[in-house]
Amino acid sequence: MELAKPYLLFLGDVHDQLAAKTAQGIVDWRRDWCVGQVRLEGCKADTGLKDLSIAQGAKAGAKTLVVGVVNAGGVLPDHWIDSIVSAIEAGMDVATGLHAKLSSIPKIAAAAKKHGRQLHDVRHPTQTFATGKGGLRSGKRLLMVGTDCSVGKKYTALAMEKGMRDRGFDADFRATGQTGIFISGRGVAVDAVVADFIAGAAEWLTPAADPLHWDVVEGQGSLFHPSFAGVTLGLLHGAQPDAFIVCHEPTRRTMRGVQTPLPSIADVIEQTIALGRLTNPAITCTGLSINTEHLSEDQAFTYLDRLSREYELPATDPVRFGVEPLVDAIAELYGEPEPKPKKKPARKAN
Amino acid sequence: MELAKPYLLFLGDVHDQLAAKTAQGIVDWRRDWCVGQVRLEGCKADTGLKDLSIAQGAKAGAKTLVVGVVNAGGVLPDHWIDSIVSAIEAGMDVATGLHAKLSSIPKIAAAAKKHGRQLHDVRHPTQTFATGKGGLRSGKRLLMVGTDCSVGKKYTALAMEKGMRDRGFDADFRATGQTGIFISGRGVAVDAVVADFIAGAAEWLTPAADPLHWDVVEGQGSLFHPSFAGVTLGLLHGAQPDAFIVCHEPTRRTMRGVQTPLPSIADVIEQTIALGRLTNPAITCTGLSINTEHLSEDQAFTYLDRLSREYELPATDPVRFGVEPLVDAIAELYGEPEPKPKKKPARKAN
Repeated sequence: MELAKPYLLFLGDVHDQLAAKTAQGIVDWRRDWCVGQVRLEGCKADTGLKDLSIAQGAKAGAKTLVVGVVNAGGVLPDHWIDSIVSAIEAGMDVATGLHAKLSSIPKIAAAAKKHGRQLHDVRHPTQTFATGKGGLRSGKRLLMVGTDCSVGKKYTALAMEKGMRDRGFDADFRATGQTGIFISGRGVAVDAVVADFIAGAAEWLTPAADPLHWDVVEGQGSLFHPSFAGVTLGLLHGAQPDAFIVCHEPTRRTMRGVQTPLPSIADVIEQTIALGRLTNPAITCTGLSINTEHLSEDQAFTYLDRLSREYELPATDPVRFGVEPLVDAIAELYGEPEPKPKKKPARKAN
Repeated sequence: MELAKPYLLFLGDVHDQLAAKTAQGIVDWRRDWCVGQVRLEGCKADTGLKDLSIAQGAKAGAKTLVVGVVNAGGVLPDHWIDSIVSAIEAGMDVATGLHAKLSSIPKIAAAAKKHGRQLHDVRHPTQTFATGKGGLRSGKRLLMVGTDCSVGKKYTALAMEKGMRDRGFDADFRATGQTGIFISGRGVAVDAVVADFIAGAAEWLTPAADPLHWDVVEGQGSLFHPSFAGVTLGLLHGAQPDAFIVCHEPTRRTMRGVQTPLPSIADVIEQTIALGRLTNPAITCTGLSINTEHLSEDQAFTYLDRLSREYELPATDPVRFGVEPLVDAIAELYGEPEPKPKKKPARKAN
């Protein structure tokens, strides 16, 4: 599954900025993939992109209309259907992360069929995966793991991709959730695949690669979350990371949505190594990524300093202080990237 | 999902006994639920039940035609369709564990609709589950875990249900795979649910119950299997077992279908406790169930004796030597069952 770019972001008429979190994430990380935003009357969200009509978006070259909002119950309101059909008629594919499937809405399905356009329901993988094989593949992999869900794994992975590329590494973000898929244009929502194929989907997502290539894999859930640990373990086994970064939010006391207490960072490191060893005996924790938004800058600084000494690992908040220490650790442990040739040698034609 | 009983077992024209493993399992454990078997010309399998036609099966009271065979690729051969449609016309539901969905075969779907019968594709759960909640529920649970897939977890669970009931325990087998579902008439194929809902499906399967009631839960996969460990962990968290039995096949060297070496029994006990603690801090290993079919009786005896002393746990082969030592351990640790009142007190009408 690969989404055609550039995107036109559809915000509908959602009532607040939070509902447009997905669209905002796309703009934050891939502004140059976006030709503009479409907002219906009454829309209270704004990504800062130029407001366009569907027709103007098509004229600007948009290849995919991305429904970048969530709605109560994950449904697609009836009064959005006409806009989506217009986009299809104007030659665009359509992608959503809603629970409701585009293909289950007759008008949209008919328009897509008539005009030969793709409908991408990224929350409903249609692809067939093999079961995991477990063998070690070439290339390097860096996985984000968390003390909980929603602690900054996606942000850290995207920041690591950028930081590693800036440093000269050959690194690619690998998306495992819907927003990440829109941001990278490909990926698989691993929590939405059939249970037997979690590890297989993660293997597919991070295939054998050049020995110096890094897959930077967005994590999912937590090994200590009683609802989702199975997904986390399948992803860990399939991604077979060489390195992992623990993501944590220090003011949280119970796991998201349940009453289970948060594990310690030490618990997460120990368990991730114990289980990850099955498919990569060299698995190592290379750093800590802390979401300090609920701490003052002084508190954050003191806390990160304490963690860093306690665990003998770099600790940073990627949003506040960047990921340089985390990139340094990768370079130190696995070697600096090879200097790129100034100009790529031209490929020989076959 | 509850299958209507009794069953009429459909064997088609499969070429060997192995292809009828599911049907044979049903006959071994629930002979009194089966009115007979239907075999087409050329069938080389035989469960030992009376051969009946579809019409004779209907007359004998069959409520569900169970397609109890596997076929290359999990498909349903075209020449079986007429038999299935006849069963529907004769008033039966139909259930299969094939990959191919009954409802995707137009003639079968149409007949079911016309006659108001149910089609059960047990490999494709249609039910909606909540995500796991993680809270401790009343009642006791016993889970089978394995050093690998296909080491006797289902057999051990069924033997434990029987052994515990014979001893006076209030115990119910809980099926997590297709053959188990046919044998118990209900359950959920946990490896076939969407990844986010593995633990939730296991919680649904083993709901809050009387404090003295035991759910005896069929396991799936292994925490050490690189393809399926995510399923195993979600099931462990959702089932929140008080007790678990480790199932093992001592001559196997690598995990089924992959090159990963088999873990030791000690590894499995340690990891199951480390991870299972999240949803049940009291989790305990109560015994070892060993498939000794590739050992002589003397070898088996010596091996079980050695394991039993090494782990200070009862070790038996349920097929060869029964499960009494495993039932004894449950009674010793959790108390003998309360003697049942000779006659159930009549319920008061509301």
